[in-house]
Amino acid sequence: MSGPLEVLVDGAACSQGWPQDRGLLYGDGLFETMLARAGRIRFESDHRARLADGCRRLAFNADLARIWDQAAVAAARHGNATLRLQVTRGEATARGYAPSGGEQARAILSVFPAPAVEELPTRVSVVTLRPCLGENPDLAGLKHCNRLEQVLGRQALAGRGAFEGLMASSAGFLISGTMSNVFLELDGELVTPSVERCGVAGVLRAVVLREAAPLAIAIRIATLPLAMLVRCTALALSNARIGLVAVHELDGRTLGRSPALEQLATRIAAL
Amino acid sequence: MSGPLEVLVDGAACSQGWPQDRGLLYGDGLFETMLARAGRIRFESDHRARLADGCRRLAFNADLARIWDQAAVAAARHGNATLRLQVTRGEATARGYAPSGGEQARAILSVFPAPAVEELPTRVSVVTLRPCLGENPDLAGLKHCNRLEQVLGRQALAGRGAFEGLMASSAGFLISGTMSNVFLELDGELVTPSVERCGVAGVLRAVVLREAAPLAIAIRIATLPLAMLVRCTALALSNARIGLVAVHELDGRTLGRSPALEQLATRIAAL
Repeated sequence: MSGPLEVLVDGAACSQGWPQDRGLLYGDGLFETMLARAGRIRFESDHRARLADGCRRLAFNADLARIWDQAAVAAARHGNATLRLQVTRGEATARGYAPSGGEQARAILSVFPAPAVEELPTRVSVVTLRPCLGENPDLAGLKHCNRLEQVLGRQALAGRGAFEGLMASSAGFLISGTMSNVFLELDGELVTPSVERCGVAGVLRAVVLREAAPLAIAIRIATLPLAMLVRCTALALSNARIGLVAVHELDGRTLGRSPALEQLATRIAAL
Repeated sequence: MSGPLEVLVDGAACSQGWPQDRGLLYGDGLFETMLARAGRIRFESDHRARLADGCRRLAFNADLARIWDQAAVAAARHGNATLRLQVTRGEATARGYAPSGGEQARAILSVFPAPAVEELPTRVSVVTLRPCLGENPDLAGLKHCNRLEQVLGRQALAGRGAFEGLMASSAGFLISGTMSNVFLELDGELVTPSVERCGVAGVLRAVVLREAAPLAIAIRIATLPLAMLVRCTALALSNARIGLVAVHELDGRTLGRSPALEQLATRIAAL
């Protein structure tokens, strides 16, 4: 585009930063938060698959082979680390929401220390939150950078003394935690909410569903009205950083244990 | 936070940019697109009010008085221009979605040329789009930086030969265009969709509603199922950059003229 005549950041002329990156302008980006263990990215193929799906659905021009090569080099160099890989659509080439199609994706890889063992929760409490998740089938499942709903969720969680908060869709269906997917024991059956209308299709969620089969554990993907949480007898959270973690308390009510979910957690931790 | 151990951008060590700005990470920001005319920002008090509302609702630590002073100086220096003022929550001080509360907002003011007269549409055609807007009352009305739905809307509009596309909520109610609010003549009455559950409370929309009263023009804010568009007899789009613009064609159907909307457009252009 004919670029800006001037850019001021906090009142001063800006000679750095990417003030016209579409990730910054519109949250027009995707990300993966990953663990590196002994120099390798855990569940790399799942992260690759989700990022590729996002780039395809949002029509990013991204050299994913090169981006993953760079991530692998960083993982090997750091050994154990948390990697946050963000891919934005890139610098805006035109003003306004419409991509020109000529943008080239920007990859930002931030390397953080690996979670310390004492940081990793074992049994946690969760509460139900009021802020909701808007439904949008075109964005559902993606780990995109429009995350204000999760920010509102975390703000609502502050001071409530719980590790995680559960969020429902605007239509009143349980979807996920603010930063995790959920698995529930309900009427003697294991279920996890559908992420076809909103929510993130978590990498650990996919791993849990995949690992359940060889253990002959059935998990149904379901549309679950939030009110059914009163009938929930066991609950676990999943995300790539913490694994599959049992919940011992839901909205102040003590939950039971699910041997099947515990078996899955053990198996996945050993992968 | 204990910052990242390393940041690589497109594979190279990064010494510039704001890779940990929450605007980039999560779209955790707000923006205003404004016109400067003869050195002054048009409808500045409306833009100020909306940005202040957003900072309050999202709990940003922003020195708005200083930010607006800087915008006023830029407007005076450039005379006629398009100003895009983005305010992000600022640099992340902790990993994850939860703000620490210790972030200091970052203001990015990008100055673009004023729209050329020939760029400003007079009578335009619009089409209805398939991508929808998720409902979230906590975010509704705000001009925040989670704009992937609008990006999808503009992508769906590409190649359809229309100036703007209309978008419905996930619940099937007409909300707005991808970059404009809408005013409709329906069964002899003027209406504009509610933006209580999703959509942006446009500055020009507020101006139209305010200016209608002294002209004794009644405009009702309504919840409008998308299907009622077949009964629409006149339509206009509003945004701060283009003003209030008549639509002559909706999904291939020629619309009529609304003397009341034309009277409002003339009055607002003269403000």
